[in-house]
Amino acid sequence: MKYTDADQGPSDTAEEIMEATLRALRKHGYANLTMQAIADEFDKTKAVLHYHYDTKDELLVAFLDYLLDRFIRRLDFETIDDPDARLSALVDRLLLEFDDDTSDETAPGFPAALLEVRAHAPHNDSYREQLTLNYELLKDMLTTIIDDGIEQGVFNPVDSEQTATLILAAIMGGRDYYSTTNRECVGEEVRDALQDQFLSELRTSDRT
Amino acid sequence: MKYTDADQGPSDTAEEIMEATLRALRKHGYANLTMQAIADEFDKTKAVLHYHYDTKDELLVAFLDYLLDRFIRRLDFETIDDPDARLSALVDRLLLEFDDDTSDETAPGFPAALLEVRAHAPHNDSYREQLTLNYELLKDMLTTIIDDGIEQGVFNPVDSEQTATLILAAIMGGRDYYSTTNRECVGEEVRDALQDQFLSELRTSDRT
Repeated sequence: MKYTDADQGPSDTAEEIMEATLRALRKHGYANLTMQAIADEFDKTKAVLHYHYDTKDELLVAFLDYLLDRFIRRLDFETIDDPDARLSALVDRLLLEFDDDTSDETAPGFPAALLEVRAHAPHNDSYREQLTLNYELLKDMLTTIIDDGIEQGVFNPVDSEQTATLILAAIMGGRDYYSTTNRECVGEEVRDALQDQFLSELRTSDRT
Repeated sequence: MKYTDADQGPSDTAEEIMEATLRALRKHGYANLTMQAIADEFDKTKAVLHYHYDTKDELLVAFLDYLLDRFIRRLDFETIDDPDARLSALVDRLLLEFDDDTSDETAPGFPAALLEVRAHAPHNDSYREQLTLNYELLKDMLTTIIDDGIEQGVFNPVDSEQTATLILAAIMGGRDYYSTTNRECVGEEVRDALQDQFLSELRTSDRT
């Protein structure tokens, strides 16, 4: 079962399973994530879980799809018209707020768990295919925002796809260094560097 | 045992163990990397391995230290004086040539194995400490190159540490997307984006 369905959108059960997966992943990390651990976070039985997803791998592919869908819904772009504000919101959300629940400090945390899932992608075709889709979708979103900004005269004319590539790579690197080093402020540092040294050149005028 | 020794530099045995670890990691990946798998790549006995490193973790911390040392030796900076050429060499090496042995296409490959090691860093203090040292060292290298370029009038005056942060994050993100998606050309794409859209702004004149 895919998380999203082109005709109907996600079902309530799919959404509940995904939220249970998120809680279980945060609590146990990827290495200790079992179908039982997910079922324990879920108010239906493990049988319901197995009815929807045959394997943990299949469930995790749907979960990677869900994560991006959830991220985009939470961006709330309907309320933001300006391309510059959209771009800053996207960068901030990806670099500063990617761990949106730090209530349980004893848990390994979500960024670390996601890094573990990603580290399995080189050997797992279905993870890699879904992560490729996620990458393309985020890059297309960024490219569209930049194209809109150029059209509206807010941004200088640039190769928008190339600009999107650089922004996305810097964001991913910042998140990676956040999880793998003791530089807790590296997310902020990369955000500030992007804003001060790259996005400032993109803007036709400093409108802050 | 640290890989490098401040007084004496690496010993021959240390170097041999590290080369054996590199081959074993490339062949088996991190998950299947055992002390025996490393010993099998090594022309001395497993006892020699255990004499130098008590645990696989201890050996891998030394290996992360070794990787950076090996990378810097191979940059061959003594032969490159110009800060701009140094910067381009560093970016190219990190983004285009990070898998320097693709002779065995059935092996999981080195970037994938390194990603797996990194994915354990959130839960492993000694990995995270070594990766923090590696990050700081690379960032200092980049900062120094940029400062030299500013002093020589090759680069525009910028906040060199912030510039280094952005370059390093983009490189790490490009490497991460290379391993976790099917976009095999993403390394080249990030390199081109860095050169065309960021480093071109850094240069006082287009000297190509």
